[in-house]
Amino acid sequence: MSKIIPGKNGTKKDVITKKASALFRKKGFPATSMRDIAEAIGVEAPSLYNHIRSKNEILKDVCFGVGRLFTSHIKEVELGSKNNLSKIEIILRFHISTMIKEYESVYIAEHEWRHLPEPFLTDFKNQRRNYRSRLAAILQKGIDAGEISPINPYVAVLTILSAISGIEGWQKSGKKVEAQLLEENMIKILVGGLKNK
Amino acid sequence: MSKIIPGKNGTKKDVITKKASALFRKKGFPATSMRDIAEAIGVEAPSLYNHIRSKNEILKDVCFGVGRLFTSHIKEVELGSKNNLSKIEIILRFHISTMIKEYESVYIAEHEWRHLPEPFLTDFKNQRRNYRSRLAAILQKGIDAGEISPINPYVAVLTILSAISGIEGWQKSGKKVEAQLLEENMIKILVGGLKNK
Repeated sequence: MSKIIPGKNGTKKDVITKKASALFRKKGFPATSMRDIAEAIGVEAPSLYNHIRSKNEILKDVCFGVGRLFTSHIKEVELGSKNNLSKIEIILRFHISTMIKEYESVYIAEHEWRHLPEPFLTDFKNQRRNYRSRLAAILQKGIDAGEISPINPYVAVLTILSAISGIEGWQKSGKKVEAQLLEENMIKILVGGLKNK
Repeated sequence: MSKIIPGKNGTKKDVITKKASALFRKKGFPATSMRDIAEAIGVEAPSLYNHIRSKNEILKDVCFGVGRLFTSHIKEVELGSKNNLSKIEIILRFHISTMIKEYESVYIAEHEWRHLPEPFLTDFKNQRRNYRSRLAAILQKGIDAGEISPINPYVAVLTILSAISGIEGWQKSGKKVEAQLLEENMIKILVGGLKNK
């Protein structure tokens, strides 16, 4: 078996995280062992422990990495001067393009986070709740300003984030349309559906 | 341990299917054993075999039951005289109300069908593909008639069906809003987003 070979864009830890994420998505986190991860990389299990302590650590890194990505993005959008519907559009486009480019990580953060050990689980749950509240707050401001049609912000957050998670189906069944077309059409339906007519 | 007691609305087999579905959703189909199902009902495992042959049989019954429900519904809508956008609205409302009322069964048919044994797996996959094609065909007719905004029908099917699957989040986190409000707001966003302006 060979050594862990880092790619030009990443450290050895990045290589491990990437391979592990692919396995977590395919087999689920509970069914993936450190041995499986080592095998996928092509090294002996003990050499993995030079770089990471456990599969929990990988899960934590992936979930919190994705969390930071979305949290720092929404913060930047909140501080911007666009109107509220445009802010929602910018956030949705960021979700869509991240789901396209960073599929495995976003999938793990969305489906496997329940396996995080404490205190990370509670922390991550709070981050998710906080993110959704901030999204709902932008929607509410847009409703108050007459830019967004009067809807329940909780249902709107549920609807738009779930719609975007449909990109999983697109990824799984062989990317039936171009990524750009996917993004434009989703935005057309969702932003069009939120817009006050 | 007691006998399997059928409710006033169902046979003994219905009782078993209901309990098994709840377990399949919570633990996943592969991790649920016949013993788990017997325990949840409060009977000895051998007595289950008087009513069903295997957990595969339950999975098949649930998936194909849900499949029949949606297939016969879309058939009825196709034959109706409404315009295409109204047909889409009727179908979406049926999805939403079924996700609310028959949550466990729909969840199993949506997430656990990959565990169906052959030839049922191929049959079910074809049913899913066929259903989505028929939905896309109604959307395409609506686009051609100028009722629906010019969008890619594949992306539209992906977006609206995924949005509705968000009802899982609503079910899991304690039904934060009334079912009727959930339905009306989802319809407002999705049908509003499809409508040609």
